[in-house]
Amino acid sequence: MYRSHTCGELRASHIGTEVSLSGWAAKSRDKGFVVWIDLRDRYGLTQLVFDEERSTPELLALARTISRETVIQVKGSVIERASKNDNIATGTIEVLVSELTVLNNAKLPPFTIEDETDGGEDIRMKYRYLDIRRNPIKNNLIFRHKVAMEVRKYLSDQNFIEVETPYLIKSTPEGARDFLVPSRMNEGQFYALPQSPQTFKQLLMVGGMDKYFQIVKCFRDEDLRADRQPEFTQIDCEMAFVEQEDILNIFEGLTRHLLKEINGVDVAEFPRITYDEAMAKYGNDKPDIRFGMEFGELNTVAQHKDFGVFNSAELVVGIAVPGAANYTRKEIDKLIDWVKRPQVGAKGMVYVKCNKDGTYKSSVDKFYDQEDLAKWATATGAQKGDLICVLSGETNKTRAQLSALRMEMAERLGLRKADEFAPLWVIDFPLLELDEETNTYHAMHHPFTSPKPGQIELLDEQPGAVKANAYDLVLNGNEIGGGSIRIHDKETQAIMFKHLGFTPEEAKEQFGFLMDAFQYGAPPHGGIAFGLDRLVAILGGKETIRDFIAFPKNNSGRDVMIDAPATIDNEQLSELNIKLDL
Amino acid sequence: MYRSHTCGELRASHIGTEVSLSGWAAKSRDKGFVVWIDLRDRYGLTQLVFDEERSTPELLALARTISRETVIQVKGSVIERASKNDNIATGTIEVLVSELTVLNNAKLPPFTIEDETDGGEDIRMKYRYLDIRRNPIKNNLIFRHKVAMEVRKYLSDQNFIEVETPYLIKSTPEGARDFLVPSRMNEGQFYALPQSPQTFKQLLMVGGMDKYFQIVKCFRDEDLRADRQPEFTQIDCEMAFVEQEDILNIFEGLTRHLLKEINGVDVAEFPRITYDEAMAKYGNDKPDIRFGMEFGELNTVAQHKDFGVFNSAELVVGIAVPGAANYTRKEIDKLIDWVKRPQVGAKGMVYVKCNKDGTYKSSVDKFYDQEDLAKWATATGAQKGDLICVLSGETNKTRAQLSALRMEMAERLGLRKADEFAPLWVIDFPLLELDEETNTYHAMHHPFTSPKPGQIELLDEQPGAVKANAYDLVLNGNEIGGGSIRIHDKETQAIMFKHLGFTPEEAKEQFGFLMDAFQYGAPPHGGIAFGLDRLVAILGGKETIRDFIAFPKNNSGRDVMIDAPATIDNEQLSELNIKLDL
Repeated sequence: MYRSHTCGELRASHIGTEVSLSGWAAKSRDKGFVVWIDLRDRYGLTQLVFDEERSTPELLALARTISRETVIQVKGSVIERASKNDNIATGTIEVLVSELTVLNNAKLPPFTIEDETDGGEDIRMKYRYLDIRRNPIKNNLIFRHKVAMEVRKYLSDQNFIEVETPYLIKSTPEGARDFLVPSRMNEGQFYALPQSPQTFKQLLMVGGMDKYFQIVKCFRDEDLRADRQPEFTQIDCEMAFVEQEDILNIFEGLTRHLLKEINGVDVAEFPRITYDEAMAKYGNDKPDIRFGMEFGELNTVAQHKDFGVFNSAELVVGIAVPGAANYTRKEIDKLIDWVKRPQVGAKGMVYVKCNKDGTYKSSVDKFYDQEDLAKWATATGAQKGDLICVLSGETNKTRAQLSALRMEMAERLGLRKADEFAPLWVIDFPLLELDEETNTYHAMHHPFTSPKPGQIELLDEQPGAVKANAYDLVLNGNEIGGGSIRIHDKETQAIMFKHLGFTPEEAKEQFGFLMDAFQYGAPPHGGIAFGLDRLVAILGGKETIRDFIAFPKNNSGRDVMIDAPATIDNEQLSELNIKLDL
Repeated sequence: MYRSHTCGELRASHIGTEVSLSGWAAKSRDKGFVVWIDLRDRYGLTQLVFDEERSTPELLALARTISRETVIQVKGSVIERASKNDNIATGTIEVLVSELTVLNNAKLPPFTIEDETDGGEDIRMKYRYLDIRRNPIKNNLIFRHKVAMEVRKYLSDQNFIEVETPYLIKSTPEGARDFLVPSRMNEGQFYALPQSPQTFKQLLMVGGMDKYFQIVKCFRDEDLRADRQPEFTQIDCEMAFVEQEDILNIFEGLTRHLLKEINGVDVAEFPRITYDEAMAKYGNDKPDIRFGMEFGELNTVAQHKDFGVFNSAELVVGIAVPGAANYTRKEIDKLIDWVKRPQVGAKGMVYVKCNKDGTYKSSVDKFYDQEDLAKWATATGAQKGDLICVLSGETNKTRAQLSALRMEMAERLGLRKADEFAPLWVIDFPLLELDEETNTYHAMHHPFTSPKPGQIELLDEQPGAVKANAYDLVLNGNEIGGGSIRIHDKETQAIMFKHLGFTPEEAKEQFGFLMDAFQYGAPPHGGIAFGLDRLVAILGGKETIRDFIAFPKNNSGRDVMIDAPATIDNEQLSELNIKLDL
């Protein structure tokens, strides 16, 4: 037995007890006649004490040699602390050590194992096992476990069955890039790692499993953006004999359960807005609604004067930034520079200060009088003291730019509060999305998404206008889940594949098994998938996912700790019947 | 809303209620004036009724067109059945249908969707989604979910944290073959899929996670034996600051919890035997102890006469097969043929019939008298009426042969009862195993297993004699879990790698990150991993794992349903900087 208690367990009620503890020497203080060591494990810190009066000289001498992160075991008795520490749970006691054993020595760690460490991202990743000893990372991983347990509990209680789907599947080249796995036993052939268990969960519905879920790793070989990982975890769900309403209710329930159990927050019924509404109001299909600053469209009130920029614009649109009328000329210029950065891409910005006295001062006073500007204020909901920021141009681009500005201003004003949770459903997504480069349509959600009833006829004439039975769950400006009602008959699926540019042969080659399955009695079905990494981060009050993943990869897809990927033996290549082609 | 109730839900108490149901038409009977359809979903069967008196002619006509596996929705009222069916939960009621909607048509399935199907293994795998509709497979998957939930519940309650470890890791060519994944972003380099999260869970212990578990997919590119899968699921566990005893206790607790919660069986404390004892008593390191037939070594009582076969044998060993003394000469000859099959490999078999009258009749009466044979009976524990079967030869081979015979006889005698559970721990495994082909030693468990204290010095002189802190959990003749106390210091690990034939450079190249980690304060730790597929099958009273896996692969590693692996585009190959080399 290495320990009778953990380092987070002892309290005043244990005073007088003989205990044994094991852990890491977190910190020590040597006052000459007395030495204290903070002993740390996953559960907490316990102060150990050695002194000239009560410890043998050998023991005291040994205690002095214990450097940071040494793994030790001690025996001793729990005593009351002279100076209590209210900041830690064990702060009323300490352990007077009678026996000290070094279980393993430790080199000086490359960064401090403290909540606020001196280690940068790179070194923390290389020594991730040391980083995990730090409370913030350790607690994130424990938090993630709790979230996953609650997800399973909720769904299992709702009669969902977790079914494991295979990891070695078949490549489907449309969509994102697959990771491929050469098959040794089937020469010249490859498996692919799943981008999601989409087709398998649909087959489970054909198989009558009725309610399926799985917390499962998925893989995408994409060029990684800042906060993406080549392998990521999904809460993948599917239900049979459901309409959109059934799915929204169940998974609103799941999300509410998590917010309640994990965050202790009660959330009212989730608002629902359509995709079109979200784009018009927030310029974004995953709006953060913890704060206002809804878009006010100004075309009708701004396109009647001689201001050519607005008159030639497809869209003139503004937001009222609360309390920002006192921005100086310099601050506003910096803001204009900000929207003109290539990442945002606006050509410029018109502003209106809504003065406290009810007057307006704008950058376009030459063209617009006070009465005009009052209409802008009404359209944007601006109050006295607000700053109206107006962008104009092509509709989609302008909305995206104003959305970026809206988020930036919210960030600056501290309106994106980590402990506030504002979920909403965005529904009625378009079925297809135009790829402007190739001028072809591809599936906005995926090729298995069902068009709205009666809209399939529109596919030929107005493909971009067809709406899907597709929905996203948005939390605090992040898409945490997305799903759809699926196509469940072979004919509709064939029409979809045709519109996505598949030849009948390609469709059969890649998805023949699914279309075959639809012929043997496929029930109506639909589902949703949540990104667990992001969900956990947001529930944890953060937006970066990396510190909620035990062993993340960097932006080049490398694990710098184990140094993977790596070159391999020629023998291994030849067994797989492949060779390098650099 | 597709349904107000499931097909397994309605009872006599619902009589008079208007309901809607959805599901598959499992079966229909047409008596002319009345048509019954059994409507099936995951939850059960409900009988639908249409008749000339109460249904419209159109409805009755439509009902007659519904073929097997058609997906339908009905509305109607719950009525009492004229002839009740005690075999199903809904057997007291039926639904008088007022509205029938065909949700999806179904082609005739290639095999019957019945508990006993007419479909062979191949066709069932090709149409696995139809196979899953059958109760035996569906119930296995639900059973698997329950087992996994109970595992998580138990371990989480014991303060274990489920941590997800990466799937894209680094190849370690010793041990089994890895599946490899070419990296597009890191040209010429490859990830490997994990054979187990072994090194990561050890790093989590270095990271202070203290108690880790994960239900996780693992991958081995081996030539597949009958009941192996290239991807399989492990319950992977690790604990810090533990000795073997702590681990045995915790996971005996887990197994007992599962037997109680899942099977309703209370099991006493698990017996523990050493590896050496298991080999001597059962010829097998995973003995089935649901029945006796323990080995009796006969060297001392059989090597004093002129029977050259025994005198020249390293081992003479027998078992007493209960009640088999009445085997005819012909039956015994067949048994001798059975042990001489190449799969078993014995050269012959000596037998002794222990007659009811206390006399013995053996195939070696020429050499042994009644007194000799009585000693054999004592050594094998044979009773009157038993048949003693004796094999001889080289120790290891003879034990393996007699073990095969023991299992075969138990099978024939019905002693391997699926609803009886006899777990045991096999401990003190050898650290190293001699590979007779290459005459080199390799790790019996894995290179991270710790030798027994004080035995590391034996490594040079008697490598085969060194015992490890390694243990297996055996249930009904199957290894369901195995683990060890790990090495936790760099020096010992380096010695192990040396003895396994690694150069220091190779050790550093492949496991440098782990040996580095050991220098920063690694705690003593150990763990265990359970094979979930097999565990679930055994708890479910079966020994083949395939029907407890939703989408298994065949013996060539193929998924015949989706037809994977498959050839891929040259474009995909070239993006990955590889080409085929057939």
